[in-house]
Amino acid sequence: MSKLPDHVHYHHEFSLRVYYEDTDAGGVVYNANYLKFAERARTEMLRAAGLNQHDIRRAHDIVFVVSKANIIYKGPAYLDDMLTVKTSLLEHTRTRMTLAQNVYRNGRLITEMTIEIACVEIQDDGITLKAHTTPQIILDALAGHGMTATN
Amino acid sequence: MSKLPDHVHYHHEFSLRVYYEDTDAGGVVYNANYLKFAERARTEMLRAAGLNQHDIRRAHDIVFVVSKANIIYKGPAYLDDMLTVKTSLLEHTRTRMTLAQNVYRNGRLITEMTIEIACVEIQDDGITLKAHTTPQIILDALAGHGMTATN
Amino acid sequence: MSKLPDHVHYHHEFSLRVYYEDTDAGGVVYNANYLKFAERARTEMLRAAGLNQHDIRRAHDIVFVVSKANIIYKGPAYLDDMLTVKTSLLEHTRTRMTLAQNVYRNGRLITEMTIEIACVEIQDDGITLKAHTTPQIILDALAGHGMTATN
Amino acid sequence: MSKLPDHVHYHHEFSLRVYYEDTDAGGVVYNANYLKFAERARTEMLRAAGLNQHDIRRAHDIVFVVSKANIIYKGPAYLDDMLTVKTSLLEHTRTRMTLAQNVYRNGRLITEMTIEIACVEIQDDGITLKAHTTPQIILDALAGHGMTATN
Repeated sequence: MSKLPDHVHYHHEFSLRVYYEDTDAGGVVYNANYLKFAERARTEMLRAAGLNQHDIRRAHDIVFVVSKANIIYKGPAYLDDMLTVKTSLLEHTRTRMTLAQNVYRNGRLITEMTIEIACVEIQDDGITLKAHTTPQIILDALAGHGMTATN
Repeated sequence: MSKLPDHVHYHHEFSLRVYYEDTDAGGVVYNANYLKFAERARTEMLRAAGLNQHDIRRAHDIVFVVSKANIIYKGPAYLDDMLTVKTSLLEHTRTRMTLAQNVYRNGRLITEMTIEIACVEIQDDGITLKAHTTPQIILDALAGHGMTATN
Repeated sequence: MSKLPDHVHYHHEFSLRVYYEDTDAGGVVYNANYLKFAERARTEMLRAAGLNQHDIRRAHDIVFVVSKANIIYKGPAYLDDMLTVKTSLLEHTRTRMTLAQNVYRNGRLITEMTIEIACVEIQDDGITLKAHTTPQIILDALAGHGMTATN
Repeated sequence: MSKLPDHVHYHHEFSLRVYYEDTDAGGVVYNANYLKFAERARTEMLRAAGLNQHDIRRAHDIVFVVSKANIIYKGPAYLDDMLTVKTSLLEHTRTRMTLAQNVYRNGRLITEMTIEIACVEIQDDGITLKAHTTPQIILDALAGHGMTATN
């Protein structure tokens, strides 16, 4: 599931700079931070389609939570690097979406992530775990409709 | 204000281990993380007095926010270090408390912080900036009443 | 691989408190932070066997890096929670170890992680990707030899 | 010292988006993260002058460390906000620079920081605390020479 078939185009690209805050005493980007990079990319992907998480929450009383993450670390990244996160919607069910989110450094794949996102209902001030149908507008945004496909 | 007079005893001590997540590519603890350490110490200081932030919020519709922070970095800390945060209430007004929170490594002062905490009212789902009288029970806890004084 | 068979005992337990720094605006522990919790637990597991990462690096010119992470998020954790990370060595090759690292809240499994750690050589000031045989002393420590098994 | 006189122009502006990773369970940007934002801004300010921290370290065997930070929190920031960090060099000695780094949200000042940076020598793999003369090229970059002044 984490393998993006060769013929599939990425639906979105997001670039970011590596700062001191992202690194650790090993001299490289700390392993947990790739999940932060993936979320920044998803947020900007939605924004590119005119959506933001706050409005979605207000309009639908739903939030998106990461339900599964599979990460393969293939190579390190360093301070001052410019990294690119490339994202594609791989598949979806009524309430869950699976995205490939791969991180590139100087054109070379260094981190391969498969992220499953669940759409859940908001209840009170906490987050329930009750699944909710993903609005079509979100699926369209994450499938890259209306965006320029890249590869 | 950031100088703790020699005759003042610390009201609370909190120890923590430095992990990879706390360090940066310079090989030392990242500068912003000392504010995290200070907050862990304040939280445990309240807990030692039988208080937790969630209950305080529920009971009084108030939260505590950092309104000022003054930090003097005197020396580095490294991976695997055990650090100690020593805290004292320096002074307070009706709605604000000023704490000395100093970090020690092997008995040597490495970071000196003066943290001002404001008590503010909760409104809707955001945080208002409307000042609120600090409950006496909080002042007592942060003044170390009922705790063993250390120095 | 992420399923820990029922008859396997955990080799190590590590408890931690959830502070504000660990949470996000959704009101729950931020998804990336579970990887931090897992690393704290591995570090303390090595320490319980008398090993620390700095000494290992000095003695063997090797470091351990996360090469794969598989995370299943089953339920949220909140501010002030006490969480327990339970760790077991599932299997190993000459240069890689696979650990189950499961997070419990009030006795209930909320996050299931399978973490693969690679032993790599240090070269210059960076980290090479050249695999290196894992010292037996590390394997023994992570297999819980000399520790009290828990379940 | 934290007050930027009205007639002083900012030397550099840096904008950033607030993501989930930046927020806490209070629903606002976590207090420690403003120090991260300040460092991103300083890094980009140097980069705008053609300098990066890695090259400076290689060329001069020096690094810059935060030696003092004074922060006044005036108002909150929220998920999805676009914030702007405005930076000016206030004053400097032979080995230390003092910067005003103020954060704006929708044109309103929400966080006022005075950051003192020390230039120190690198020794072995750690960071010594031995002060070192700041290269003129760095002073010029942080004084905004060759940049478009903003206010």
